[in-house]
Amino acid sequence: MTDDPPPNPALLPSGLRDLLPPEAETEAAAVEAMMDTFAAHGYQRVKPPLLEFEDSLLAGSGSAMGDQTFRLMDPDTRRMMGLRADMTPQVARIATTRLVRASRPLRLSYAGQCLRVYGNQLDPDRQLAQAGIELIGHDSPDADAEIVLVAAEALALLGLTRLSIDLTMPPLVPTLLDEAGTTQEARARLARALDRKDAAAVAERGGPLAATLTDLLLSAGAADRALAALDAAALTPGARVLADRLKDSVAAIRARAPGLKLTVDPVEFRGLRYHTGVCMTVYAPGRHEELGRGGRYVCGDTEPATGITLYPDAVLRAAPPRQAKTRVYLPAGADHARAAALRAEGYATVAALDPVPDACAEARRLSCTHLLSGDALVAVKSE
Amino acid sequence: MTDDPPPNPALLPSGLRDLLPPEAETEAAAVEAMMDTFAAHGYQRVKPPLLEFEDSLLAGSGSAMGDQTFRLMDPDTRRMMGLRADMTPQVARIATTRLVRASRPLRLSYAGQCLRVYGNQLDPDRQLAQAGIELIGHDSPDADAEIVLVAAEALALLGLTRLSIDLTMPPLVPTLLDEAGTTQEARARLARALDRKDAAAVAERGGPLAATLTDLLLSAGAADRALAALDAAALTPGARVLADRLKDSVAAIRARAPGLKLTVDPVEFRGLRYHTGVCMTVYAPGRHEELGRGGRYVCGDTEPATGITLYPDAVLRAAPPRQAKTRVYLPAGADHARAAALRAEGYATVAALDPVPDACAEARRLSCTHLLSGDALVAVKSE
Repeated sequence: MTDDPPPNPALLPSGLRDLLPPEAETEAAAVEAMMDTFAAHGYQRVKPPLLEFEDSLLAGSGSAMGDQTFRLMDPDTRRMMGLRADMTPQVARIATTRLVRASRPLRLSYAGQCLRVYGNQLDPDRQLAQAGIELIGHDSPDADAEIVLVAAEALALLGLTRLSIDLTMPPLVPTLLDEAGTTQEARARLARALDRKDAAAVAERGGPLAATLTDLLLSAGAADRALAALDAAALTPGARVLADRLKDSVAAIRARAPGLKLTVDPVEFRGLRYHTGVCMTVYAPGRHEELGRGGRYVCGDTEPATGITLYPDAVLRAAPPRQAKTRVYLPAGADHARAAALRAEGYATVAALDPVPDACAEARRLSCTHLLSGDALVAVKSE
Repeated sequence: MTDDPPPNPALLPSGLRDLLPPEAETEAAAVEAMMDTFAAHGYQRVKPPLLEFEDSLLAGSGSAMGDQTFRLMDPDTRRMMGLRADMTPQVARIATTRLVRASRPLRLSYAGQCLRVYGNQLDPDRQLAQAGIELIGHDSPDADAEIVLVAAEALALLGLTRLSIDLTMPPLVPTLLDEAGTTQEARARLARALDRKDAAAVAERGGPLAATLTDLLLSAGAADRALAALDAAALTPGARVLADRLKDSVAAIRARAPGLKLTVDPVEFRGLRYHTGVCMTVYAPGRHEELGRGGRYVCGDTEPATGITLYPDAVLRAAPPRQAKTRVYLPAGADHARAAALRAEGYATVAALDPVPDACAEARRLSCTHLLSGDALVAVKSE
């Protein structure tokens, strides 16, 4: 009989990982820098719990995350609880319950960790950091623009100055199909073709809308071209209202940030599970990874809202590295007041716990580039 | 037939709660301020995941939290995972696996959320924030002192300058009982009496140690008195070594922070489940709530380590309130450059999304104390 070998203690479940120095520090600093930008624009921080009753967590806009939510039984009440997979539904819950009487528009921010049951090939992580803002109680192009501009400013302060923002209007195509009386079956086949961006299939399956949808599909890209295609398209009245709103939101962003790179995809509608208006995805230049995404939704039963969530893990991968603190070794007996002054100037001091024969060697061993000698800060030559 | 009433969406499971403005902001700022102090003393941040395999999470020092740990099945491997109830065992795991080759002493810091299955009467919260440091690979009074002093400095920077630190040596009494050949049964009865601080019962059940244990029990309080009682006590050799170490650690703290209020409880041994040396609990003046606790333990199988965890929720309740940003209302058409300059100076700006007839009234409605009029920052009179 053989025992199973003991499990490797360094092994973590797939999609879960340790952040080590210096990444953990860089990520935390990035989150706080984003939260500072949000606060500077009047967004006030809330902190919902990691765990809440399943029926409140998955109500409304939260239902889209049902498959991705870990469940636990509350030993107290025997009711099921869920570990949040997304914070936006929690913030919406706070806005419609405890902050229901707060003045509108209500600007809230949040940062925290989320867990999901499965990773995917594109993003294997099962623990995701989020940092975001919600602007609740206002439906206007200026509100859409504010969300985009505040997020772009937060990322710019982290060195991500050449962003690309992709704007979509998920209800546009479904509204067009509804108003054109497309059958359920034709619609499902078209949706698959649009999803795959397969222009030939869209042309074949689009029926009377084939030309319009193909034009719109092929226009996706630089905002001007896509908006011109929307202008020229033969849209039904409801779809026209949505197209005009997308155009107005783009104009509102442009008015404030003429240099921001905007793309528009008029036929994209993946966000539709809870998005009801202009949506946005943020990319770093030359990268396919999303730095954040958001869009318009209904908060509670009736309140217009929009918001954006940034992903600190992705931001960390895209942003230029952060300058770490200079580490200064304090030999035994070093002047405590001078050491405190160095810390106040931004240095990290590393105190000796034993006397050592060679302070320089010890400083190097502890990854210090300097040591304190009397009153002097001395650079330690690398070996 | 009646339906159950729909559950109240505002209801959270007991012990779980939302932090609202301004508390969520204050708590986050307190955590980052603590982490900054830790970083200034050379502690490098790590971020373990919320969830890991049960057998690694509950190994070694983690086993003490077994009852308090929520379990989940990993759908991937069908192995059980645990939601962390404490971060120290995770940091110890990182030190003994991925950072096993990093130079010692290894100074690590961490901040994050923990979940536990049950709250208790004293502290009903089931989600706890932690922010702490671990000093791994060194066993000395100076190491014990560093942990205490860095924690005290972090709290002082949050306005908590009149702390009280209670120091204990959990293995002292068990060592004394072992060396005195106390029977298992007598020991259990004594332990209950000591736990309840019941001097009469200790005197009655203490056998040959009755006088020594009663003296020590009654000496708990101001450090000088308790250490004098320890000096005077008839201790067995192993217990004397522990008592001397406690005294040396107190002296090391005193040498660096003569003004810090220290108490000593020589017979306290509740921490023994994994603590092997000097332990500390931090209190704010006049409050019974713990702001943090820590102590010496064995990291992995053999490495000496000490550490302390601060509890941001408790710190938030004890610390003086933080100055919130001044909110400035930006009427429609306000100068964007001037608004950006205000934000850079630390103001929060709240942009109008609609023109309003009375900007002052609107500013008040949005909790702004000022508004931007042309280039001028104008105070808004309260009604």
